[in-house]
Amino acid sequence: MLIKVNRKELTKHISIVQKAISQRTTMQILEGIKITAKDNTLILAATDTEISIKTKLNAIVEREGEIVINSRLFGDIVRKLENDIININVENYTMNLKCGDSIFNISTQKADEYPDLPKVEDDIKLDISAKDLKNIVKKTTFAVSNDESRIVFTGVFMDIKKNFINFVALDGFRLAIQKLEKETGIENSIIIPSRSLNEFVKIIDNDIDVTLNISKNNIVFKFDNTIFYSTLLSGEFFSYSALLRDEHKISTIVSKREFQFAVERASLLAREDRANLIKLNVLENHINIKSNSEIGDVFEKVKTSEHEEILDIAFNSRYILDGVKILESEDIVLNFTDSVNPLIITEKGDDSYIYLVLPVRLAG
Amino acid sequence: MLIKVNRKELTKHISIVQKAISQRTTMQILEGIKITAKDNTLILAATDTEISIKTKLNAIVEREGEIVINSRLFGDIVRKLENDIININVENYTMNLKCGDSIFNISTQKADEYPDLPKVEDDIKLDISAKDLKNIVKKTTFAVSNDESRIVFTGVFMDIKKNFINFVALDGFRLAIQKLEKETGIENSIIIPSRSLNEFVKIIDNDIDVTLNISKNNIVFKFDNTIFYSTLLSGEFFSYSALLRDEHKISTIVSKREFQFAVERASLLAREDRANLIKLNVLENHINIKSNSEIGDVFEKVKTSEHEEILDIAFNSRYILDGVKILESEDIVLNFTDSVNPLIITEKGDDSYIYLVLPVRLAG
Repeated sequence: MLIKVNRKELTKHISIVQKAISQRTTMQILEGIKITAKDNTLILAATDTEISIKTKLNAIVEREGEIVINSRLFGDIVRKLENDIININVENYTMNLKCGDSIFNISTQKADEYPDLPKVEDDIKLDISAKDLKNIVKKTTFAVSNDESRIVFTGVFMDIKKNFINFVALDGFRLAIQKLEKETGIENSIIIPSRSLNEFVKIIDNDIDVTLNISKNNIVFKFDNTIFYSTLLSGEFFSYSALLRDEHKISTIVSKREFQFAVERASLLAREDRANLIKLNVLENHINIKSNSEIGDVFEKVKTSEHEEILDIAFNSRYILDGVKILESEDIVLNFTDSVNPLIITEKGDDSYIYLVLPVRLAG
Repeated sequence: MLIKVNRKELTKHISIVQKAISQRTTMQILEGIKITAKDNTLILAATDTEISIKTKLNAIVEREGEIVINSRLFGDIVRKLENDIININVENYTMNLKCGDSIFNISTQKADEYPDLPKVEDDIKLDISAKDLKNIVKKTTFAVSNDESRIVFTGVFMDIKKNFINFVALDGFRLAIQKLEKETGIENSIIIPSRSLNEFVKIIDNDIDVTLNISKNNIVFKFDNTIFYSTLLSGEFFSYSALLRDEHKISTIVSKREFQFAVERASLLAREDRANLIKLNVLENHINIKSNSEIGDVFEKVKTSEHEEILDIAFNSRYILDGVKILESEDIVLNFTDSVNPLIITEKGDDSYIYLVLPVRLAG
């Protein structure tokens, strides 16, 4: 391999593939980036077996070749170089890298020891804008379960319907659904590891379109010269639609900011020995929020729109706050049924996002 | 205690005294802030027995009083309130706090259980600008020892001479001296815990003057309405002046940036199994820097001003980088004597700061 490559371009593409390098792999070869030089193109590839990434950039290739080099060391070196052009020559599995007055000689590994990346199959093909994808990830992934023993709930359920897609995350205490209007023409569903979604949105800019290819065991995200592969989780997801009722005994509007701040203050006393327990007393035109612990108590009052019914209900404030914080509208809608059924929170004037929190049942 | 106080002012002063609250105290009373309301003034005080802080702010005091309240809880509550004015009423050791639609009732403790702060004695009095203090702290505290078994070297030695002060920090591998020109008229020396200096500079703005009062066991920093106390470390410091020679076999000028980046790159290969070992080959108009490990090797070349002598010398690159990174001048001076004597680094055109690194002796 004998190449000349632009340092800034190479830095950018190394950062992309490094998202697929695990910090704690036991296979030494997976600490590496596979580099292929061919047809005046450099292809960088990396995998942790769950996430795999392949990205291409232009380079002057004077002699083709293929090797694997330690990802962290190679990335750190390239990022710290200063000249515009890097000259790389690989012979006898040693990479000689020259840039300005810097010369590095680094051992590399054989490329044929590197695992193959998954094949891209075109079973289902969808286009989603980066902006929509970022919004979906922000609004759902925080609500997945951390419990590795029920692995399907660590993922986001992508429920594809003929003319919309629901992205659903839940952990047994709360549930988040982001709906995306889209003429897909099909019905299908998959479960994407939430880590894959979080890593993928880190490498995309806001103004691009992403193509998704979904097959039985994999999802592939494509944009520009980059392909991002993720394995899928297999198993039965929770049948969430039964939880979504349209009729609520109380449907009341609050300022997102006022409600969030009041719940945050009420949580201050409940955070340690009281498992974040706060009590809501929903009255005709305001909500009283109470909380107490050994050291004291707190009373908060938040104005709401007028409604007829009243209700007492208790929550773990953390689950309310997680969902309220990420909302963007000035006013939000709180939908209550009774003290044992979930609170359903939506943005006023936009029903594409639904956040549902189960109440805490109080003894007596 | 019955008071009205401005929320923003109170927030600011709580943040100041919280610098004296230890995260790991075993005395519950030291998790508290002592609040004294008197003469339309609120005095907040906190101590971890090494650092103590007292700060005053205006308040409308309708009934005087004195209590201790949990620092973290009180700070979190006040920071999260939203209205301008906070009403505080303490009766029977319960603080009732009202602000807008928020009401808190918090248990407090008796103020007479709180330890007394040190007395301020006027043995030695000096004024230093905040800007100079911040520079001193930045240029010295990073070089102190972390070894608690030789406690004096965890502090910064303040060596007061008749017309200057040297601030000295060392850990056995490197030494940093920041000199401050000042007509003190006295000769004295103390050792200030580096943590105290680091915490103190966090609470001062750049444009103020600070008054230092030094007595046998304490140093006191005063500004505006705040007093910051620190205990001193007692013991013999290292007699550093013998290390500072004026004559050097090689005294050569390099670009700070070029030298720093070359050493950083050379360190990339040496960081794990090689204890950051880099070798410098100082030639007549450049320095070659080499480093290697099992995975490879690196060669860097940095231009220097012309000089006659040449030298081979080795270092732990971390100690060089710690001192070079904080320098502000474009060019720096590297002074070498031989391969076993320290490298002395200064800023070009400013001899107020001296950074000295011991070389690594290579076998054979």
